[in-house]
Formats: sequence, C-alpha cells, structure tokens
Amino acid sequence: MNPSAPRSHDTIRAVLWQGDHLHLLDQRLLPREEAYVDCRTSDEVAQAIRDLVVRGAPAIGIAAAWGVVLAARQDRGGLDAALARLRAARPTAVNLMWALDRMQRAIARDAGADALAGEAQAIQDEDLAANRRMGELGASLIAPGSGVLTHCNTGSLATAGYGTALGVIRAGVSAERIGQVFAGETRPWLQGARLTVWELLRDAIPATLVADSAAAHLMSTGQVQWVVVGADRIAANGDTANKIGTYQLAIAARHHGVKFMVVAPSSTVDMATASGDDIEIELRSPDELFGYAGQRTVVEGARAWNPVFDVTPAALIDAIVTERGVVEHPDAARMAAVFGAA
Amino acid sequence: MNPSAPRSHDTIRAVLWQGDHLHLLDQRLLPREEAYVDCRTSDEVAQAIRDLVVRGAPAIGIAAAWGVVLAARQDRGGLDAALARLRAARPTAVNLMWALDRMQRAIARDAGADALAGEAQAIQDEDLAANRRMGELGASLIAPGSGVLTHCNTGSLATAGYGTALGVIRAGVSAERIGQVFAGETRPWLQGARLTVWELLRDAIPATLVADSAAAHLMSTGQVQWVVVGADRIAANGDTANKIGTYQLAIAARHHGVKFMVVAPSSTVDMATASGDDIEIELRSPDELFGYAGQRTVVEGARAWNPVFDVTPAALIDAIVTERGVVEHPDAARMAAVFGAA
Repeated sequence: MNPSAPRSHDTIRAVLWQGDHLHLLDQRLLPREEAYVDCRTSDEVAQAIRDLVVRGAPAIGIAAAWGVVLAARQDRGGLDAALARLRAARPTAVNLMWALDRMQRAIARDAGADALAGEAQAIQDEDLAANRRMGELGASLIAPGSGVLTHCNTGSLATAGYGTALGVIRAGVSAERIGQVFAGETRPWLQGARLTVWELLRDAIPATLVADSAAAHLMSTGQVQWVVVGADRIAANGDTANKIGTYQLAIAARHHGVKFMVVAPSSTVDMATASGDDIEIELRSPDELFGYAGQRTVVEGARAWNPVFDVTPAALIDAIVTERGVVEHPDAARMAAVFGAA
Repeated sequence: MNPSAPRSHDTIRAVLWQGDHLHLLDQRLLPREEAYVDCRTSDEVAQAIRDLVVRGAPAIGIAAAWGVVLAARQDRGGLDAALARLRAARPTAVNLMWALDRMQRAIARDAGADALAGEAQAIQDEDLAANRRMGELGASLIAPGSGVLTHCNTGSLATAGYGTALGVIRAGVSAERIGQVFAGETRPWLQGARLTVWELLRDAIPATLVADSAAAHLMSTGQVQWVVVGADRIAANGDTANKIGTYQLAIAARHHGVKFMVVAPSSTVDMATASGDDIEIELRSPDELFGYAGQRTVVEGARAWNPVFDVTPAALIDAIVTERGVVEHPDAARMAAVFGAA
C-alpha cells in the first residue's frame, strides 16, 4: 500500500448543515440515484424524517436538532409546536427524543439562535467523535487478516459519519486488521444490499454481498472471524435488540467459534431495561414481505409474520463496544461497571 | 371438522401427460399467473426444463421421461440424440439422469411406444407413491398441535405431486398433527415466498411467510417444534446438501431444542459419497443477489457470493425420512442399515 495515499475510507456525509439549510442525502433513492433534499424549515425536516429521506437513529436525531435551529430562526414563538412536530415524525426512535430533549434544555437556558446552532453542531460532532472512538476500540479486538460479516446498515448513512459497526469496519480496514468484509442483504428492507454495499464501495472497501441465509455456510468456510453489528437497544444485562436476523447470526457465530461484536453509542444502553425479556419486539406490516419496489412476489391472500427486531442474549455476545469503553463477555455486573446502575 | 368434507390438501399437479402431449404448469409465472406450457416434442420438453418452466429434481426427471416418450413417437431413429438433449437440459440434476437412465434401459429392452409410456407413467406414479409414504412416515414423528417451519419449495410443484417435505406437512395437517406452518422466503429465488405459499394456500393450508433471517427469533417464541426440509443429496453418513439456508436453520433448531427432519426419496441418498465434505457446493451468478423481482437493488460494481446449497451435518439432523423408512439420528451405520453399503 502506498503510504502517501491516505485511505481514511470515510467520505460520506448524509446530514450536512449548510449555513441556512439542511442538506440530506435521500436514502430512499440509493443506490440508484445520489440526490439530496434541502430542508429550509423545521417542518420540511420533520417530513424528511417521516418519509425516510434520512434514516438510522443517530442521523435522525442530528437532523431533528437542525430542525430546531431552523424553527428558532423562523419564529421563536412557534418553537414548542415545531418541536412537537419533529418529535412525532418517528415516535419510536430513541435518539430523536434524546436529541430533542437536549435542544429543549438549550431553549430553556434561553440560548440564542447561534447557541442553538452550536448545540446541534455539538450533537453532530460528538456522534462522529464517538463513532471514531468506537472504531478504534472495536478494531483493536480484531486480529490482523480477519474477515468480518455485518448486517443492516450502521454506517455514515445512519450516523453523523463513520458509523458504529461500519466504523469498526472502516477502522479495521484502515489498520489492515480486516482483510475482507461480507454484508448480509437484510430482508425485508435490504439495507445491507442497498445501502451498506453502496457506502463501502464508495469508500473503497469492497464488500461482498451474501444472502442472509448464507451466513452459516460462509462461517463454515473459515472466511469470517468476527460478526460486527449495531444495536437499537442494549439492556442492563447486555442483551441486545437489533435488526431481525442478528440473533440468528449470533447463534451461527457461536456454533463456528466466530466472535460476535455489538457496536453502539452509550445512549443506546438502557440501564432501566433489566434484560431482553423486557424489550418488546415491534411487528411491521406483512406487506414488506409480499414484494419489493412495487413488484408483488407473493400470492394474494397470503399471510406473513414480520418482526423488525430480535434480541441477542448477552451470553452470545463477545464484546459490546461503546465510546465509553468495551464490555467483554457482558453481564449485569460488567455492564454496571461501565454504565452505572439503573 | 366435517368428516364428510375430504381435505386431502392435494390438488396441484405441475406435470401432466395428456395422451399425446405434456402439460406443464409454468412455474416462472407463479404466483402472478397460472398458465400452462404444452410440449409436443422432446425438444420442447428439454427447452421447458432449461427455461425453468418445470423445476424441482423429481419433477424434472418425470418431465424428461415423458420427453423420451414424445421422441420415440416422433422418430425412433433420433432417440439417442433426443436423450442427449434432454440430459443436457439441466446437467447437475441427479434425478434427471436417474429417470433418463431408466428410460434408456427400457429402450434397450426394445420397448414399444406404449411400453415407454408405461415406464414414464411408472416413474411418475412411483414418485407420488413415495411422497405419500414419506408423508405418513414423517407426520407420524410429529406430536399433535405442532408448528413447523419449511424452506424452499418441496411440494407438488417440485415432484409428481404431494411433495417431500411439503408431503409431510400435507399429511401432518390432514392428521391434525400440524397446527401451523411457516415458510421461509428462500432468497435469492424466493421459492418459499413465490411457490410454497401459493401451493399451500391453494391446498387450504394457510402458511405464514417469514424472512429467512427471522427463523431463529421465530423458534425463540415457541411456535415451531419441527423444521422440515427436502434434500438435493444425502451422503452415506447422513450429511445432507440442500438449498442455501438449510444449515443455518439446523443450527438454530438445535440451539432451541427444535427438531430437524429431512425428507427425500431414496434416490437422493448417494451411498458413494462418504460425507458432506465430498459434496461440491455450486456457486451461481452474483446477479441473483443484485436485484429483487426484476428491480436492481445493488450498486453497479458490487460483488456477491452466491452459493446455491449448503451441507447440514448429520449430527444436526433428528430424522431422515425416505420411502424406505426413517433413519433417526443418522450416522454411517444407521444409513447403511437402510440403504446398504456403498
């Protein structure tokens, strides 16, 4: 490798503040088209969140914070209503609530427009910094020459940049610890096929796409040493809710002696949730399994069961990586040592 | 249940001889359209096999046998060439070779056109009878009120009728042993989503479609007591090659204490193959993963790894069901006891 050629593998930004408006990479159109949506009002930001122009919990939170800045510039008197509309855009996204709470505290301090912009920028900068830190921490666990498998999209598209699990992969490739990256398709929404493969190829990390059901066979060939995934919620005992299919990967990984790493900012850890048993699994419409991109593939009258998440028990997880540190072989005591009691 | 209403759950026939031509249900169009292709020459049959009008190893073999009958009626002198063209239609399908070998032996006995038709009909009838026998044997292993999960399509569409794994499901539902059926999508070709759900709904067995990656989470909910799948090749020690994803299901099943059943005619057992290590896994075009229902979903320049089959080790299989009997906890000795030495 030419040492004079920097290869940070980190060029994509999906959420960009441009002085007076928010510039959002339209993720609905990827990978077919790389187009941006400009939001000049907070309601346009709320709409973009609702319409999935922007997705990924941290990216949604950052976009919403900039939406508050736009609202404050428009009409300070209408701020409460604007905040409520942003909050309602994706009612289940925890990071959205967290970011809006933080902006609301700044408003309560009577922060001016510049100070609010500073708070939004801080949320964005801190997310990027956390991702880079997690990247270093996670990559350090991976032995040189390893192959990794990831699931869903946890990259620059889903965050301020760099990504969580994909941040570890970016750092691991930069450090020449990771030699090969496999990405699962992630049915039904195909975030792996549509977004992760696009994002990694764009950043000069050629990923190899596999069917979700090929993961165990892939592991049996010895090409994968780590499975690296993100998280939607981590319970106090380390049990982790993430995109459907994660649990299956963890079982297959353990069967093959492949290590399993969860990468998420500390805001994903919910010490008030004792274990995975207390996490409700959201069911989405069966329609998501009945076709794709407007093409119906399943007979009318069929039924389907479409859970969005599953829970991977802590016992199947080798390491939980956050910006606060790594919890190896997580359990309630080891989690409390890093994240405090509930 | 009304005892006067017969519920055989067995109405579909994909390969039908109609006195002077072969009537094939066009599986490329399912479930959107239920159309038939009529073949009046052996070359039309070869074309239909090549084009996937008919699929599923036993169904292909039966169609090819009728192709020989058509060839013999056309031009007895051209029989060898017609056989060669049929044999080349899907060179890797073992059942195609087996059926054509059997027809060739009839030709060598100088069988007349009627005798050849009798031989083709025997191949078809024996397949259906084997499936019904396997259905009884397999269903008898399943406790009343069970839920089952299947993969790919192993039904009437893939055989003379009734099916292998789907035959066990038909028999189990008829006997009220099976209360609920789940079908995995089976990426990339979606045989589960497109064909199995259509076939079962058509035969009054409402199946619930799940993403392939939701199987482990499904098992964790306690809704599934058996995974029931077909096979493409069974080695002398019981290791079983089947559609990609089968191995992952077997690992998840064992993790949850869910039982795992393989259902296939004895012609699928290859006592000359010592173990799964000796089975070469066919890789198909990455293109199959680059789109969905004709829609390109993955960026140009991407790469993919698309193995068609995987191998489930015998140790993860609770029962191999053939028309000759059931091998529980298969290993080389138990397999040899039923199928003889290599």
